[in-house]
Amino acid sequence: MKKKQFFKTIAITSTSKEKRILDIARQCCEVILNSQIKVLVSDNLSLLSSLTKVKNASDEDIITQSDLLICIGGDGTMLSSARRFGFFGLPMLGINLGKLGFLTDIAPKDITTSLLEVINGEYIEDERFFLEATTTSSEPHLALNEVVIHSGAVAQLIEYEVYIDDVFVYRQSADGLIINSPTGSTAYSLSGGGPIVHPGVNAITLLPMFPHSLSSSSLIVGGASKISIKMIPGKGRGRAKLSMDSHDTVLLKSKEIINIIKATPILRLIHPKNHDFYFGCRNKLGWSSVISNKKEDK
Amino acid sequence: MKKKQFFKTIAITSTSKEKRILDIARQCCEVILNSQIKVLVSDNLSLLSSLTKVKNASDEDIITQSDLLICIGGDGTMLSSARRFGFFGLPMLGINLGKLGFLTDIAPKDITTSLLEVINGEYIEDERFFLEATTTSSEPHLALNEVVIHSGAVAQLIEYEVYIDDVFVYRQSADGLIINSPTGSTAYSLSGGGPIVHPGVNAITLLPMFPHSLSSSSLIVGGASKISIKMIPGKGRGRAKLSMDSHDTVLLKSKEIINIIKATPILRLIHPKNHDFYFGCRNKLGWSSVISNKKEDK
Amino acid sequence: MKKKQFFKTIAITSTSKEKRILDIARQCCEVILNSQIKVLVSDNLSLLSSLTKVKNASDEDIITQSDLLICIGGDGTMLSSARRFGFFGLPMLGINLGKLGFLTDIAPKDITTSLLEVINGEYIEDERFFLEATTTSSEPHLALNEVVIHSGAVAQLIEYEVYIDDVFVYRQSADGLIINSPTGSTAYSLSGGGPIVHPGVNAITLLPMFPHSLSSSSLIVGGASKISIKMIPGKGRGRAKLSMDSHDTVLLKSKEIINIIKATPILRLIHPKNHDFYFGCRNKLGWSSVISNKKEDK
Amino acid sequence: MKKKQFFKTIAITSTSKEKRILDIARQCCEVILNSQIKVLVSDNLSLLSSLTKVKNASDEDIITQSDLLICIGGDGTMLSSARRFGFFGLPMLGINLGKLGFLTDIAPKDITTSLLEVINGEYIEDERFFLEATTTSSEPHLALNEVVIHSGAVAQLIEYEVYIDDVFVYRQSADGLIINSPTGSTAYSLSGGGPIVHPGVNAITLLPMFPHSLSSSSLIVGGASKISIKMIPGKGRGRAKLSMDSHDTVLLKSKEIINIIKATPILRLIHPKNHDFYFGCRNKLGWSSVISNKKEDK
Repeated sequence: MKKKQFFKTIAITSTSKEKRILDIARQCCEVILNSQIKVLVSDNLSLLSSLTKVKNASDEDIITQSDLLICIGGDGTMLSSARRFGFFGLPMLGINLGKLGFLTDIAPKDITTSLLEVINGEYIEDERFFLEATTTSSEPHLALNEVVIHSGAVAQLIEYEVYIDDVFVYRQSADGLIINSPTGSTAYSLSGGGPIVHPGVNAITLLPMFPHSLSSSSLIVGGASKISIKMIPGKGRGRAKLSMDSHDTVLLKSKEIINIIKATPILRLIHPKNHDFYFGCRNKLGWSSVISNKKEDK
Repeated sequence: MKKKQFFKTIAITSTSKEKRILDIARQCCEVILNSQIKVLVSDNLSLLSSLTKVKNASDEDIITQSDLLICIGGDGTMLSSARRFGFFGLPMLGINLGKLGFLTDIAPKDITTSLLEVINGEYIEDERFFLEATTTSSEPHLALNEVVIHSGAVAQLIEYEVYIDDVFVYRQSADGLIINSPTGSTAYSLSGGGPIVHPGVNAITLLPMFPHSLSSSSLIVGGASKISIKMIPGKGRGRAKLSMDSHDTVLLKSKEIINIIKATPILRLIHPKNHDFYFGCRNKLGWSSVISNKKEDK
Repeated sequence: MKKKQFFKTIAITSTSKEKRILDIARQCCEVILNSQIKVLVSDNLSLLSSLTKVKNASDEDIITQSDLLICIGGDGTMLSSARRFGFFGLPMLGINLGKLGFLTDIAPKDITTSLLEVINGEYIEDERFFLEATTTSSEPHLALNEVVIHSGAVAQLIEYEVYIDDVFVYRQSADGLIINSPTGSTAYSLSGGGPIVHPGVNAITLLPMFPHSLSSSSLIVGGASKISIKMIPGKGRGRAKLSMDSHDTVLLKSKEIINIIKATPILRLIHPKNHDFYFGCRNKLGWSSVISNKKEDK
Repeated sequence: MKKKQFFKTIAITSTSKEKRILDIARQCCEVILNSQIKVLVSDNLSLLSSLTKVKNASDEDIITQSDLLICIGGDGTMLSSARRFGFFGLPMLGINLGKLGFLTDIAPKDITTSLLEVINGEYIEDERFFLEATTTSSEPHLALNEVVIHSGAVAQLIEYEVYIDDVFVYRQSADGLIINSPTGSTAYSLSGGGPIVHPGVNAITLLPMFPHSLSSSSLIVGGASKISIKMIPGKGRGRAKLSMDSHDTVLLKSKEIINIIKATPILRLIHPKNHDFYFGCRNKLGWSSVISNKKEDK
């Protein structure tokens, strides 16, 4: 927790324009304006620009003119806003709707108090890294959670070779391969049995999906590693796909080589001062739940 | 659910003589005596024999003279009572303390109504099988949940060969091997990642513990199979142990062969008529819990 | 192993018309014709009908007129031939190309001796069951290995409720759900961590794919169970798909209910007399491989 | 790979005095003495001190007077030598007997060429860290692979709370808990389904053993973390044990708190210049093995 200067301009964004989102955004505006801070809102929230001192702004203006971005939605909204704004250096604060997320941690009922604290500099800053996937034919693709290379269908194999820093690791046939950051370790990777990696660990996880191999362990390599996936074409195989944060998807060429590295820009996540990564895990992963069992009643 | 004749004599047992157990047993006595049914109590509950028409009885008398056994405790009490009484044909009904178990399913607060229903013949009968483990040097050992062959220490390997109906399956080094009935599939085996097997499936599960092999899948074989485990002695290895329901433990000889089969006598579990195996699973295994996640808020 | 009457007519099929397939088929013809048995060949092998006493036949004629079907290919060929011919009562024998399969077990080099043995009645008959999946809008679909209900994309959730014999089991969000027979337990299910189920066990396995739940155990229910999957539509969810043996795929309606039962017709697999299910497992699953490790050298 | 100065004194150790160990040690002596380098041997190899210029030396003399230690044995020998010599700064080179290990990587047949290369400065230096476990009542205990806290028996629960840097993580009942370094990720942890962590990653893995909880994921925390395990006593529970590298074992007090941190001294492993971590994985973990399957033959 660090004491910080007051913010001068705060932007608000959402991937939805539903009424309950607008209501929460309006509530945020009030708290912010009361603190004599300017407010910019992105497209979906343009209705709010009817409020005095609230301006509808382009993505570029939001990035260059504001010093905090409030994202209203859930972890999905955070993921897309991270690629759209956070990647360019804008710190982000998430307000979730309903269920608590791993990335959003202010509940609607706590907006006034939590937001006021943050505005007053009572917050924690948490750095997360992006993965950057490059193919021979495209601009780099960004992912905050994970890059997935997959066949685009269930029970349809792709085959590939994995290299770490140009050293051969293994050749594998599988439905797909998940390459995730620590941030992504509590998302898709977890459903596939991958380990939970604390956000502060500088490491990247590789997890095969339904592999046709004898060993299906996940592999954890250093954050500075270059991970190269060399696609091996095969009879009757469709075109593999590259998917970022389960959102952007691009088709791969049949002998494509995908290079995945940690991106240079860092995402700055802002949390209320009582934020606790493990609390989120306990809350969302049932860690505190204990199966009552045969031995406890003897 | 079947309509049945009234019970003539009901026995009550527990592995504890705590006050709350005695209180519940006394409550059971009242319900039963009101229905003009005789009551026998086992050792731990002998205090209750001061009540009119309640008699303290030996295990043998309980087995031969009663037609229902009420077990007060938890799944652990059920396991030991199953080996002590149920194996000899006495139907069993479990009253749990506190947390619901997989084997006990009347909560203390429902005793009067649920017990009355059962007494009136409104119950479900559920058949479970025991495993019987035989070594060259001992009487057969019974287990309702599982037989475990293990090194008796963490990270100390045992080596063995597995045969099913005298056909070689595999040779393996591991901390141990769990062989469990469907009843045991929701107990120790589940903690080790084994599958949940519905009690009605006639099958036995083999699950290695911390195996030093490339494949660690569980293997499910037919209930009529003879499973033979041939111990292979090795330098620096201690004596392996055989453990039944995590309770009885015997030392094994260095080249012992253990044969495990489904026992002939069947355990008759009595459940209140609203019993539901899957309800127990949902309740105890968090099946109804859903992780909220990044994709549901977009 | 049973002594059987001689076969009168043997059919040969393959899903390919490659030269090496034709060569093996020709070799089979020679062995069979030498034994005074008639040969029918399916479409892909029609070139062989130039041989005396070899006739090209329709699927219907093959089913009604022959008493053994030889499938040349791999497990994939066996799967489609099982649905096309075996389902109608025709016993099947698999000749594999290259790698040994779980369903095919005569290697090309052993054709003459193994086939001759089978022709002479020296064989094992192994019964396998099919799964039959019915939706409200379609004819029943057959699968020998597994039925998969899935989103048709990686990391895209479907939501559904599972009922066994009309009793609610759980509600789950996942990429998909695999329902497999014991035959399918060594196929796709195994890649997802499912248990290996001996072909003789009368049971069906349910295995969620990348579930968003706290518990991801597989569930094994009796072979006579009716498994009902009730699809729950959701915002932003695509149409789920139903896939049989990773081969036939049909689109599901948004609130579809899929019923899956064991089909009545049984598949009769013919094996050379030395067939051993566990040999196949050891060979293909690395069961005999042992990781050398730190403790063995002390 | 770095060019280094010539070694002045090389020590040789083993945990065994078997003839084949002595033969290999003698072969090493010849290579080393030919290079005009002095040789010290530890107790088990004292027979070799009959050779000119070979001296039997105490552990302390070996640590202070030599600049390379050759360990003959397997990974187990390396583990104990690491705690005995390597911890005090002496670089170590492993010569394995029979099977290749993860820590030893010169095969007996390659001794002359590989050792000569190393002596000539053609080697790779690989840094590994130790874990240091402290209880309230004992000196710190060292482990290179893993610290295990366990009940000392199969299916006997211990209960504990885990704190990372004094922040509560979870409370859990389990047979035990494995806390391992990246070096240990290919040892006991791997048998329990833990992830493989590249030796260069600065992280510590926590893996519960047969946990009675809904979530059994492994957790990976930063290498600088202090991991505290607070034991919770319970009725009928035996005394838990603390085990280092599956070797040293100490009994824990009933409410003990165990603190585990990365030790300050670093282990310097010396490898021949062609060393490759992933080669070891492929070789020992079957990564190159591919299950042939139903889909590849269509």
